[in-house]
Amino acid sequence: MRIDIITVLPDLLRSPFEGSIMKRAIQKGLVEVHFHNLRDYSTNKHKNVDDYQFGGGAGMVMMIEPIDLCISKLKSERKYDEVIYMTPDGKTLNQKMANSMSMLENIIILCGHYKGVDQRVRDMHITKEISIGDYVLSGGEIGAIVFCDALIRLIPGVLSDETSALTDSFQDNLLSHPIYTRPAEYKGLKVPDILLSGNFPEIEKWREQKAYEHTKERRPDLLED
Amino acid sequence: MRIDIITVLPDLLRSPFEGSIMKRAIQKGLVEVHFHNLRDYSTNKHKNVDDYQFGGGAGMVMMIEPIDLCISKLKSERKYDEVIYMTPDGKTLNQKMANSMSMLENIIILCGHYKGVDQRVRDMHITKEISIGDYVLSGGEIGAIVFCDALIRLIPGVLSDETSALTDSFQDNLLSHPIYTRPAEYKGLKVPDILLSGNFPEIEKWREQKAYEHTKERRPDLLED
Repeated sequence: MRIDIITVLPDLLRSPFEGSIMKRAIQKGLVEVHFHNLRDYSTNKHKNVDDYQFGGGAGMVMMIEPIDLCISKLKSERKYDEVIYMTPDGKTLNQKMANSMSMLENIIILCGHYKGVDQRVRDMHITKEISIGDYVLSGGEIGAIVFCDALIRLIPGVLSDETSALTDSFQDNLLSHPIYTRPAEYKGLKVPDILLSGNFPEIEKWREQKAYEHTKERRPDLLED
Repeated sequence: MRIDIITVLPDLLRSPFEGSIMKRAIQKGLVEVHFHNLRDYSTNKHKNVDDYQFGGGAGMVMMIEPIDLCISKLKSERKYDEVIYMTPDGKTLNQKMANSMSMLENIIILCGHYKGVDQRVRDMHITKEISIGDYVLSGGEIGAIVFCDALIRLIPGVLSDETSALTDSFQDNLLSHPIYTRPAEYKGLKVPDILLSGNFPEIEKWREQKAYEHTKERRPDLLED
């Protein structure tokens, strides 16, 4: 998978891509991530990429021309499956979307910043608008970090134990059951006896039951799907 | 506001806190953010903080003792409003939660990693469990970045134009109206005439109408609240 991220703040993106799972995936050659500084595509001498909004109002708007130049250049180099815009009014990311999008080959991610992009960018280039949740962030960069991490960890070979991702929350519409590790007792708090019993069929039953109860209590909506 | 983040990957967190809004808020003294490397609280010579789960199964579990030591130390130094655990089975973050939590004084954020933390950590210390969305990430660090950004940008004085945050998506249960900036025409794509009219009451009406239509089309659930 190749991911091209268009941003006004490439430096903000660095550390998450240089740590943990994403770093490992890049080092293993399972994913290529390229940052494109939008200012390099500015057509004026001040390297501006934003301007006041027509009709007045607070907040700056990202201009169409630098974005069009950058996306057009990338599109001339290879075929992209999706040109994604990270925006709070996009389709809300969920695990099912992450699963299916983790199989794409080439994607562009445009990070909105300030008040967002000129509507004509969306009309002209964007094939998918994605939100990571119902809250506003200071920029699409943070959404892009989340989106890339959710996708990249699903690419086969990225996680050291492939079964691990399949037993995650949401993969079966259930939240996780409670988990415990050593010591068996800490400050009077004990691990449930069943987990120490060695009776694996019973442990499996207990876990399913707990996952179901936990989901029913916290997220009954997941059980309705 | 003071935020203490407990993590196994402090380096992963750096760049988002060193860029953009969060950097500005820290420089202005409006927020203090401290990273605590959980390995510094490990009680064994290999600096381990995780172990296999009782009852078997894929994935490692974060042990209770280092986390308890770290949280207990912080709590002995000051009073915390909330001890938050970032986890996909927590309460899903939304703008309303971000608004109210942006007014807290001291919070601890524990970043889950691997399969998550020993259940007893949650029973013993955690006062709030927060998810940023219905998808799984490689670690709570990324959730913590999102959560901190959503909160910090709302602290008065952080955004340069305070009215800007109030006109964001979700603050009035409506998505944004379309926005445009110069040039008025680009490759045949024109800005709507109304925005160039200078008739501000009409522009306001147009924007409200568009925001409503956009919300009704994309997120009718927001209009039901």
